[in-house]
Amino acid sequence: MPVWNAPTRDTRFMINELIDLQSYAHLPGFASVSTDLTDAVIEEAGRFVGEVVAPLNQVGDREGCTRHADGSVTTPTGFKDAYRQYVEGGWPTLSAPEQFGGQGLPHAISFVLEEYMGSANQAFAMYPGLANGAISSILVKGSPDQQAKYLPKMVSGEWLGTMNLTEPHCGTDLGLIRTRAEPQADGSYAITGTKIFISAGDNDLTENIIHLVLAKTPGAPESSKGISLFIVPKVLVNDDGSLGDRNAVSVGSIEHKMGIHGNATCVMNYDGAKGWLVGEENKGLAAMFIMMNAARLGVGIQGLGQAEAAYQNGLAYALERRQGRALTGPAEPQQKADPLIVHPDVRRMLMDAKTFIGGMRALCTWGALQVDLAHAAETEEERQAADDLIGLLTPVIKGYGTDMGYKVATDMQQVWGGHGYIIENGMDQFVRDARIAMIYEGANGVQAMDLAGRKLAMNGGRAIQRLFALIDAECAAAGDDPVATLVAEKLARVNGELKASVMWFMQNAMTNPNNLGAGAYPFMTLTGIASTGLMWLRMAKVAAAALAKGTDEVPFYEAKLACARHWAARFAPQAGALRREIEAGADTIMALSPEAFAA
Amino acid sequence: MPVWNAPTRDTRFMINELIDLQSYAHLPGFASVSTDLTDAVIEEAGRFVGEVVAPLNQVGDREGCTRHADGSVTTPTGFKDAYRQYVEGGWPTLSAPEQFGGQGLPHAISFVLEEYMGSANQAFAMYPGLANGAISSILVKGSPDQQAKYLPKMVSGEWLGTMNLTEPHCGTDLGLIRTRAEPQADGSYAITGTKIFISAGDNDLTENIIHLVLAKTPGAPESSKGISLFIVPKVLVNDDGSLGDRNAVSVGSIEHKMGIHGNATCVMNYDGAKGWLVGEENKGLAAMFIMMNAARLGVGIQGLGQAEAAYQNGLAYALERRQGRALTGPAEPQQKADPLIVHPDVRRMLMDAKTFIGGMRALCTWGALQVDLAHAAETEEERQAADDLIGLLTPVIKGYGTDMGYKVATDMQQVWGGHGYIIENGMDQFVRDARIAMIYEGANGVQAMDLAGRKLAMNGGRAIQRLFALIDAECAAAGDDPVATLVAEKLARVNGELKASVMWFMQNAMTNPNNLGAGAYPFMTLTGIASTGLMWLRMAKVAAAALAKGTDEVPFYEAKLACARHWAARFAPQAGALRREIEAGADTIMALSPEAFAA
Repeated sequence: MPVWNAPTRDTRFMINELIDLQSYAHLPGFASVSTDLTDAVIEEAGRFVGEVVAPLNQVGDREGCTRHADGSVTTPTGFKDAYRQYVEGGWPTLSAPEQFGGQGLPHAISFVLEEYMGSANQAFAMYPGLANGAISSILVKGSPDQQAKYLPKMVSGEWLGTMNLTEPHCGTDLGLIRTRAEPQADGSYAITGTKIFISAGDNDLTENIIHLVLAKTPGAPESSKGISLFIVPKVLVNDDGSLGDRNAVSVGSIEHKMGIHGNATCVMNYDGAKGWLVGEENKGLAAMFIMMNAARLGVGIQGLGQAEAAYQNGLAYALERRQGRALTGPAEPQQKADPLIVHPDVRRMLMDAKTFIGGMRALCTWGALQVDLAHAAETEEERQAADDLIGLLTPVIKGYGTDMGYKVATDMQQVWGGHGYIIENGMDQFVRDARIAMIYEGANGVQAMDLAGRKLAMNGGRAIQRLFALIDAECAAAGDDPVATLVAEKLARVNGELKASVMWFMQNAMTNPNNLGAGAYPFMTLTGIASTGLMWLRMAKVAAAALAKGTDEVPFYEAKLACARHWAARFAPQAGALRREIEAGADTIMALSPEAFAA
Repeated sequence: MPVWNAPTRDTRFMINELIDLQSYAHLPGFASVSTDLTDAVIEEAGRFVGEVVAPLNQVGDREGCTRHADGSVTTPTGFKDAYRQYVEGGWPTLSAPEQFGGQGLPHAISFVLEEYMGSANQAFAMYPGLANGAISSILVKGSPDQQAKYLPKMVSGEWLGTMNLTEPHCGTDLGLIRTRAEPQADGSYAITGTKIFISAGDNDLTENIIHLVLAKTPGAPESSKGISLFIVPKVLVNDDGSLGDRNAVSVGSIEHKMGIHGNATCVMNYDGAKGWLVGEENKGLAAMFIMMNAARLGVGIQGLGQAEAAYQNGLAYALERRQGRALTGPAEPQQKADPLIVHPDVRRMLMDAKTFIGGMRALCTWGALQVDLAHAAETEEERQAADDLIGLLTPVIKGYGTDMGYKVATDMQQVWGGHGYIIENGMDQFVRDARIAMIYEGANGVQAMDLAGRKLAMNGGRAIQRLFALIDAECAAAGDDPVATLVAEKLARVNGELKASVMWFMQNAMTNPNNLGAGAYPFMTLTGIASTGLMWLRMAKVAAAALAKGTDEVPFYEAKLACARHWAARFAPQAGALRREIEAGADTIMALSPEAFAA
């Protein structure tokens, strides 16, 4: 069975040393965050996930979920018990508001649990993950009655929740949805239609599931401006909070998928199901975006998580499997062959993986802090800055994070050679599971357009200017540590390529918006390299300072410096090529007529 | 069910227009190659594969192979009948020597069938594919008696063949094998040991299978210099050619794999099985390399084939699925949404795919011609040049070809969005099947080392100097067509990066061979970009000439020019980044101690 160990030491580095969470203790919501508390949460989360959740990852892949003749759905062996322990441990409540039974901790803390869960068992993690999205929407857009009725049991984990957007004929283009919502005399709506790809759509983990469903009311505009959001419980909830009748929603089938078999991806049939409007009519898309932004960050974290899980197993094999000899002569002459890790090409893959993982974990931790600061920072300027930056980088964390998660999973499978292709060894599951993260919650091409087509231009480009300035300032303050200086020099160049690309978009996208569309993807990748580079510069400074001060963890900090240098040597050089791809524009991409593609 | 259509028009372009096969008619073995013949083979191969082999691709994935209680193995529904038709059609015999019942056609022709088969159904294609490897070895290294005994029925397809190299503890490092061969009084050997990952190891397609097995004779050196190659038939063959007793070889199990389910990947147990030495004792590795070189080209072609198959289905979906609107305003305002192909990011993936496919098909066709010319060209200089070039480019075709095959399969799955993740749609099979091609017949990292560590230095760098000169000459002769001029300009720059990289290796690998190992992989990618760029320059010239001359296939030739420009816009720019990665050397890659990777 694949190994999985919570990377607690690195997490503590991120929380305590990189973002120094304790330094925000004066802000609302951060008061209780002592190093003792965060370290305890990290260790306990690592222990729980490692002991209870991780061992079910391969079981879930092998067994999948089952829809029974009566329409009920059961999850793989062990999932129900693990979920019970998850709820009993209070894990769902970490960052939920205290008003509804949550612990009100910063997202920078709950992110840790999210990473560990998605890393150890992505399919399992999606059950509470989707519920979190549903909670977010009700928190922001639900009426006080709705909040009181649904949130406490969702926050506690007693009930789960889902997001119902996609229909057979539409995914990205939600303006096309056909599910109808007919107003009823009692103020509710009768929801009728079919939704597909509904993750965690039904299951046996909880006695109720609160579905959030996009539908159209009679006479609503045809576009995405005519979509409303509804709460549709699987089991109706009486006014006293007790469960009532089963609602008219059923599972048509469970999809057969490439991966994440342990999650029940359902076709949901709504057949006049009772639903209640969330927020205003025709404003459903905005409400949905609240949960989507959280979900997109969550999916980016899945990319990180799958990379971490695959890396641990790639590394274990590289240390254990003996094949061939080091190019510089036998490393272990007394053995018949050296371990794989002596080979530079194996190390290339391991170092690429380790460097991506470290950079992305830092970016996600720092990003989670921005989510908190967007609400809790002292000044409007600080709140706006945090909101700008996390808004800009959400599609990057999702798109670049999951592209690289898949690449790392593929590379780590490659380290295993032929044995990586054998299902029992589990390396292919990392690839198959990681693959969906590039697709769902907005395919990565949609993320790229969200970044280049929407986030860049918002507020006159304020957010990207903040990122430029942040990187410039960080490079200028690199100090005289040689590694930090090196990384700063490369990062400044990457920032230059990023600026030039934005300039090129400004000069060329007005005349032809296809130039934006054609360059959006390499621009997302470039921004991913720049923002993880920013993190490596900061980490290099922290690590150099720790070593200068003296530490009994020399190998840990030296590994940080080695990865920072590896970012400079192997990631930074890609920036120039990406800029040139962007500047190539739409010309060759739009040259052919659709028919000529088959020529 | 996924579509698959033989790309016959493009194949005819490659054979008749790009390499102009007819111009070699004066050489031995090429005499019969008229345009009529090649066009007929292309059309018939396309028809046969499209009608008989392609429809079984998904069936094979779904059913897999079965090992029964008696140890026998059956292939998926339809495979046996399709193989019968394959044999009856004479398809196995295309490029085999006439002496053993073959048609003696150039490899440039048999490559077409190989591409179509691997594209339409990789798992099925592997049955005759492995037999071809076995045939090559017996042709070159077998005794006249062995050739007479085994080759006629292998060439006809009546018997299949396999390659048995890997053991549980060794794959790349064959010096470690443990299978023993004990000499017997009758001149045969008793073979005992376990082989794993044996593709097509057993099956119900033929009444006999000729296994080629690597084993060690008593007292043989411990390294790869102590390996011998043996013929071990599944069923012993009597002197009169009739079948005798079952040999002591059995299938322990069929591996559970990520993909290529339709091929029986077997654990083979040899239990004192009767075998006969092929060639000299302890010279088995050299004999094995003969089949491996052919097999490596074949695997590169699988990368091309999976890319083609995935592209056809990605394109079909992009033309049919409607989602969103063109950035420049509705393309089809009367519809509720535009087809996916209006979106630049979707086209980016399609153009990348089409450009890779065209460049790689050209490279493989030209490469197959070099295989022929290495034997058939008039002068020793020409034969040597062809041999040098195909030797150099074999690891590139295998490594770059399969990396890109996987990337294209992944991109085309991405075009399908969530529907690409659903097994019934077949897009995930392209990804899962394409994945193995990066691993088997020498993992791509091994290919990179074969290129950079072995092929570069052979004969004082003669082969790479030939490639440099070929590209330089082609760029100098670009003529004045604007597309050819543009491509030549970019290609010259790519060649410059390639030359600089080789120079860097020369200056830095002697002092530290890890610098070679660390740069081998980006060097392989860079060589892949350069060599497909060379092909695009040639194709641009051919297409421009055809358009200038006048043609009723304007869209076909214009598409060639568009792809050539796309290579220049989007592939060529990567060269600089790859060179910088190479020049970064082993420093950051070898910085950490093995233990520190877990820090």
